[in-house]
Amino acid sequence: MRQTPPAVPGMREDEVDTPALLIDLDAFDYNIDRMTTLVAPTGVKLRPHAKTHKSPIIAKRLMAHGAVGCCVQKVAEAEALAWGGVPDILVSNEVVGATKLARLCALSAITNIAVCADDAEQVAWIEQAAAASGRRMTVLVEIDVGGARCGVAAGPAAVALAQRIAASKHLIFGGLQAYQGSAQHRRTVAERAALVKAATDAALRTRDALRAQRLECAIIGGAGTGTFDLEMTAGALTELQAGSYIFMDVDYAKNLDAAGAPVSTFRHALFVLSTVMSAPVPGRAVLDAGAKAVSMDSGLPEVWGRPDVRYVNFSDEHGKLDVASETASPQLGEKLRLIPGHCDPTVDMYDWYVGVRGRRVECVWPVSARGGTY
Amino acid sequence: MRQTPPAVPGMREDEVDTPALLIDLDAFDYNIDRMTTLVAPTGVKLRPHAKTHKSPIIAKRLMAHGAVGCCVQKVAEAEALAWGGVPDILVSNEVVGATKLARLCALSAITNIAVCADDAEQVAWIEQAAAASGRRMTVLVEIDVGGARCGVAAGPAAVALAQRIAASKHLIFGGLQAYQGSAQHRRTVAERAALVKAATDAALRTRDALRAQRLECAIIGGAGTGTFDLEMTAGALTELQAGSYIFMDVDYAKNLDAAGAPVSTFRHALFVLSTVMSAPVPGRAVLDAGAKAVSMDSGLPEVWGRPDVRYVNFSDEHGKLDVASETASPQLGEKLRLIPGHCDPTVDMYDWYVGVRGRRVECVWPVSARGGTY
Repeated sequence: MRQTPPAVPGMREDEVDTPALLIDLDAFDYNIDRMTTLVAPTGVKLRPHAKTHKSPIIAKRLMAHGAVGCCVQKVAEAEALAWGGVPDILVSNEVVGATKLARLCALSAITNIAVCADDAEQVAWIEQAAAASGRRMTVLVEIDVGGARCGVAAGPAAVALAQRIAASKHLIFGGLQAYQGSAQHRRTVAERAALVKAATDAALRTRDALRAQRLECAIIGGAGTGTFDLEMTAGALTELQAGSYIFMDVDYAKNLDAAGAPVSTFRHALFVLSTVMSAPVPGRAVLDAGAKAVSMDSGLPEVWGRPDVRYVNFSDEHGKLDVASETASPQLGEKLRLIPGHCDPTVDMYDWYVGVRGRRVECVWPVSARGGTY
Repeated sequence: MRQTPPAVPGMREDEVDTPALLIDLDAFDYNIDRMTTLVAPTGVKLRPHAKTHKSPIIAKRLMAHGAVGCCVQKVAEAEALAWGGVPDILVSNEVVGATKLARLCALSAITNIAVCADDAEQVAWIEQAAAASGRRMTVLVEIDVGGARCGVAAGPAAVALAQRIAASKHLIFGGLQAYQGSAQHRRTVAERAALVKAATDAALRTRDALRAQRLECAIIGGAGTGTFDLEMTAGALTELQAGSYIFMDVDYAKNLDAAGAPVSTFRHALFVLSTVMSAPVPGRAVLDAGAKAVSMDSGLPEVWGRPDVRYVNFSDEHGKLDVASETASPQLGEKLRLIPGHCDPTVDMYDWYVGVRGRRVECVWPVSARGGTY
């Protein structure tokens, strides 16, 4: 069952039922504007990753601020966004499986859509699905630019795969997917810059080799919140795929800028609102937000605005707080905002966003593609 | 939106769309029978924790095999189970907040329900909600038996709280909640036994102090999959609350028995079925199951039946496999079963269970209380 929303517009934040997924709309708007302003002078396009938010409402809001469309990672996400009216979607990932590919091709009737490939057999499967649907599908070649995850090798192997796509009757070669995932959370600018340099070189080398074969890349996509500032001027990418910047999480806030201070480009805009549901002894308080309310995959959440209170341990439905001895413990029933360790999988736990501005609920949005596992 | 199910009954397992949450029904039935057989001679009751499965279908199946009811951790779980026909539910946790308490009291019209408290103020809130609903609520006192999470101190403080409950017009004192969460995953029997001993002593001491005040405990509940074997004969508990044993996960399978071997009482019955969606180079394969398909909070998943293949790294929608050099890499499109690191939060990611027997789909059950965050 889908849950009823934990809030109604007009409510005060402290009336919202918990745990709830909050967007601080002022910070969210700030982040969107900030990214638009930073990217605009470069001429590189912005195609923010919707795996972060899974919401056509947010994807269209980003497009209203200059984004050319969105990325998704799964067919189910593409469906939720296309059905919600997003007109341009890149599946920045491989899709394998006849059922999934049939659904993907069907979507191309209602939205501009492209998908990635890194294997000749997979290209043949896409061709088959496209032929069966009577449509032509745009396919980008994903190259491994250093992340050692998916992606064919840059250079000749990528060219061969692009030629195979271009030679397929129902496929259109759309360009390169060149995302360096393992660069995003390197803490120093020097580390990130070194990886971006290598990724950029691989993408440019492949682009030039494709050109030599008269294959033009309509899109060369990549970058995340950790590297967009470097990649937007590095010369390879035509589109930036950062997603987390709209929300920011504890993990991304640990990246450092050139001066060695935490990167402060964006603000924390996503929170899990939680309630103190037990305060059995002085110095300890227990929140109603554990591993089912905040994803722990990239570390623990932090308590927002309370440097004296640390989230130190979790179980499924509990979060244990340590309270500095010189300060007042959070009281039973008190509501605290947590900054998630990792925003994307945390969002995926919730059916609803509660948008607040000035501590009043302004909107309640569905997380439309939640659980879009296939 | 709720997803369409990834399978229909009669399908072969390798036709199920991925990632999907599989129950191997033979192993699942084995685990249920095994627990019933182990516990029956002790006379202690079994009230398996439904936070593991979130399904009234499973809760009722467990009751058909001797369980007296189920535990839940949240009001939303209680609702899904009560509406699904489960006649006896213990919320083995504190509930704080007027909205939640009103819903809880409303549920008492359709099911036997009890809730825990560890604070006098919280008891007053429950009394208020019960009075407003015109019903009497059963309240257990949660005592801290060593886990240092929720719970009032054992002994006099617990007695005072029980007296307060008993003196409340709309409340019934129901007994003690005495769960030692931090004992469950201690690896050696000696470690678990020491913590169980202390927990048992605390519970018995409190029970006797209550008796001296003519307060009888209808229920003394506790134990998990890691300690039920010790606690069912330790003499304090009247009900066992283990949940994970029906599924088993990587983390619980690391507990050791008296001989120092991994505990083999139960079988792995829960899997995430996933597809190899990229196999870019020899020795590496990438699955379509990452941090949004398997909870990473207690460690990485393992690949079932493939000791030559290790799940070594994840991103949101990818799981990277290392393949031993002497064996054949999983092929693009091949489907593999993963054993989740931690079953409870993994289940909470999915809308559907796919029950398979002999590699054929037998049933597709909703995870009814999924996302039951409040």
